[in-house]
Amino acid sequence: MSEILRLSPCEIIRKKRFGGELNETEIRAFVKGVVDGSFADYQIAALLMAICINGMSERETLALTLEMAKSGDMLDLRGISGVKADKHSTGGVGDTTSLILVPLVACCGVKMAKMSGRGLGFTGGTLDKLESIPGMRIDLSTDEFERQVNEVGCAIIGQTAELAPADKVLYALRDVTGTVDCLPLVVSSILSKKLAAGCDVVVLDVKTGSGAIMDTPEKSRKLAELMVRIGNLSGKRFSAVITDMDQPLGNYIGNALEVEEAIHVLAGRADGDLKTVSLELGAHILRNAGRVQTVRAGVELLEEKIRSGEGLMKLREMIAAQGGDPRVVEDVSLLPKAKAKIDLKADRDGWLAAICTADVGNAAKLLGAGREKKTDELDLSVGVVMHKRIGDRVREGDVLCTLHVGERSDRIGAYNLLKRSLKIGKEPVKKPTLIHEVVEE
Amino acid sequence: MSEILRLSPCEIIRKKRFGGELNETEIRAFVKGVVDGSFADYQIAALLMAICINGMSERETLALTLEMAKSGDMLDLRGISGVKADKHSTGGVGDTTSLILVPLVACCGVKMAKMSGRGLGFTGGTLDKLESIPGMRIDLSTDEFERQVNEVGCAIIGQTAELAPADKVLYALRDVTGTVDCLPLVVSSILSKKLAAGCDVVVLDVKTGSGAIMDTPEKSRKLAELMVRIGNLSGKRFSAVITDMDQPLGNYIGNALEVEEAIHVLAGRADGDLKTVSLELGAHILRNAGRVQTVRAGVELLEEKIRSGEGLMKLREMIAAQGGDPRVVEDVSLLPKAKAKIDLKADRDGWLAAICTADVGNAAKLLGAGREKKTDELDLSVGVVMHKRIGDRVREGDVLCTLHVGERSDRIGAYNLLKRSLKIGKEPVKKPTLIHEVVEE
Repeated sequence: MSEILRLSPCEIIRKKRFGGELNETEIRAFVKGVVDGSFADYQIAALLMAICINGMSERETLALTLEMAKSGDMLDLRGISGVKADKHSTGGVGDTTSLILVPLVACCGVKMAKMSGRGLGFTGGTLDKLESIPGMRIDLSTDEFERQVNEVGCAIIGQTAELAPADKVLYALRDVTGTVDCLPLVVSSILSKKLAAGCDVVVLDVKTGSGAIMDTPEKSRKLAELMVRIGNLSGKRFSAVITDMDQPLGNYIGNALEVEEAIHVLAGRADGDLKTVSLELGAHILRNAGRVQTVRAGVELLEEKIRSGEGLMKLREMIAAQGGDPRVVEDVSLLPKAKAKIDLKADRDGWLAAICTADVGNAAKLLGAGREKKTDELDLSVGVVMHKRIGDRVREGDVLCTLHVGERSDRIGAYNLLKRSLKIGKEPVKKPTLIHEVVEE
Repeated sequence: MSEILRLSPCEIIRKKRFGGELNETEIRAFVKGVVDGSFADYQIAALLMAICINGMSERETLALTLEMAKSGDMLDLRGISGVKADKHSTGGVGDTTSLILVPLVACCGVKMAKMSGRGLGFTGGTLDKLESIPGMRIDLSTDEFERQVNEVGCAIIGQTAELAPADKVLYALRDVTGTVDCLPLVVSSILSKKLAAGCDVVVLDVKTGSGAIMDTPEKSRKLAELMVRIGNLSGKRFSAVITDMDQPLGNYIGNALEVEEAIHVLAGRADGDLKTVSLELGAHILRNAGRVQTVRAGVELLEEKIRSGEGLMKLREMIAAQGGDPRVVEDVSLLPKAKAKIDLKADRDGWLAAICTADVGNAAKLLGAGREKKTDELDLSVGVVMHKRIGDRVREGDVLCTLHVGERSDRIGAYNLLKRSLKIGKEPVKKPTLIHEVVEE
């Protein structure tokens, strides 16, 4: 401790300014200073910029991640029997994989103890989606959480404990100093929360494309590789799947809308990219947890849990355990419904050639499905349903997508944004690769 | 203006983060944001760090300097007839050249309109030194200042106007984020204030060695070259002299003590490095102002002003004009005197081989001659008088220096620091080069 106290912020900042490698003591002093305020905002900002430009070694990134994980509560999940698994996505549009894979994996005997965030973004986070189920509680105590995971096999709740508070400070500053997209900072931000959440096995869904933070497969691979390496060095079992975000993953974009699509998938009524990615991620968890030998076998096992209806029943059980109305899994009309619908139609013949995915997300936000500021209130019923995917044949007058609008929706803004973001070409185009790469050690 | 408003801090920060060259509009938006608070401290800190690591082109440095100069009042000295000159030193120990060259240059018909600071450092700034003269006023109004320079030919006062307020904010942040020693930031900080002070001709004294910000001649040359280039690009006439700070320049270190040594030099009673550097700097001003053809001729003219006693009489006149007791120039005993003196003696035979100049300065500060914080009160009477210079023969028992101590002095701390900072060697050593280089365009 006294060793830490002797380190002044300026010394640490200057070491990184001149390209030095920070040792564990220096990184500990920094993270401690972030939490206790002995590093001022402007000193943190200066160090973050030096890290962005001069980089961090793997050793530094690991130390930063571990110190950030230790900066608040570390969840102790030893009260839950068996292997505990978690999943993280770098975020995209129509990305509802958690609601599908959590009950499916739980059916196979691997515990899914998932803490989710609300997040700023195109639509709400998993928590917002869950709250569109009438009565659903996401504010379980740690004891209730533990009991439910033991009994039901899965739970998805909000953060009760204060996980990695250093990340909150750092993220807020990165957001306003142009230092969000810096690999070691992204990695330590994501992993510190995952490590503090206490699971043994983690699968990462790293998105790539026009709706992702990392817009090229190369950047996404670098991020995935570093996260898997740092995650495994921390003593957990990590793997990552790089998946496409050049178009929305699911066809339903919103909050209640995404719950509805997840139910369709679990009920065996919907195939497609959302299902494929959900099963791939779930299969990695099963393989990493030792439940199956290969990812292929994992996918088959999860397919079987859909066919048998066990997956949908597990979701029903989880909803009931958390106080929600379990009948939604049989009757999606119990979910909040938008006041009105508006179709966006193709104005020419051709093929759907490209989608600006981020703008589809922004359109959903304009309708009220996502937050601009933390305090914004969502309209859980609104959103967009896509009817065409890239590569599909389109005829003039075909409905490309349907806007589900509410009273507070900016209908015109969203309509125009969607119109601009869907490009119809004169030539056939190939469907984009869905699963670009698997990263494991 | 609307163009500036559209530039977000993050965009500007990110451009520099990725090594881009900021254009004038971006630099104007930054400096404006520093002054009006639309750039938050942490955003300024992030940009300063990006500048430190990725550098700034000459064009960017010029734009930054000019915008900082324009960030507050720009002095209009057109009411003063003739060429107006100014001088700046990067700061050192026993550095009393202003008090010598200001009256000497004024005797030669070039107006010295000098605004000085108090500064943090080893001893007080020029203002503190002047205040050791009983009655001396340094808070003249701009009108009084102008009138005195017109009538007497010179004045040294504190900043009445708010010159380059952006620099105050930037300097305070650089100080606590490890970004002080960054060439374009140092240059823009110094020059912005000089440009706002409105003189036509400026000579820069760039120190090099163990007591200087720039500790090698190479670094000092880079700083000098950039300052002269940017200064001349701004439309003024600049030159720089790189002078030695491997030992204190004068032998007297303190406030009243330095006034005393300046009087000795002007009275023709003291030769040596302090006089040599003062005359060299003054001669550059005379040459740049067109008063003489060569620096050599300038030095001779200034020597003549010492021999004739005109220089000392000009100092007397300036002191009287500013309300000070003019009799000090004939009787230095009217200056504040320390309570006691302590001799530091050589403990062996040899040659004075090296001096840690910064620590001699720190010893003077421990005695009470300098400030740690802005609010510290100085003891104007205390300090150190050196009796040996590098290369001098030393016998055991010779007095190396004398501590002038007061009631609040840390005598033991200062004594021990001085003892450690004076190195006696067994072999003769060469005297250091005094004037390393002249930089002009």
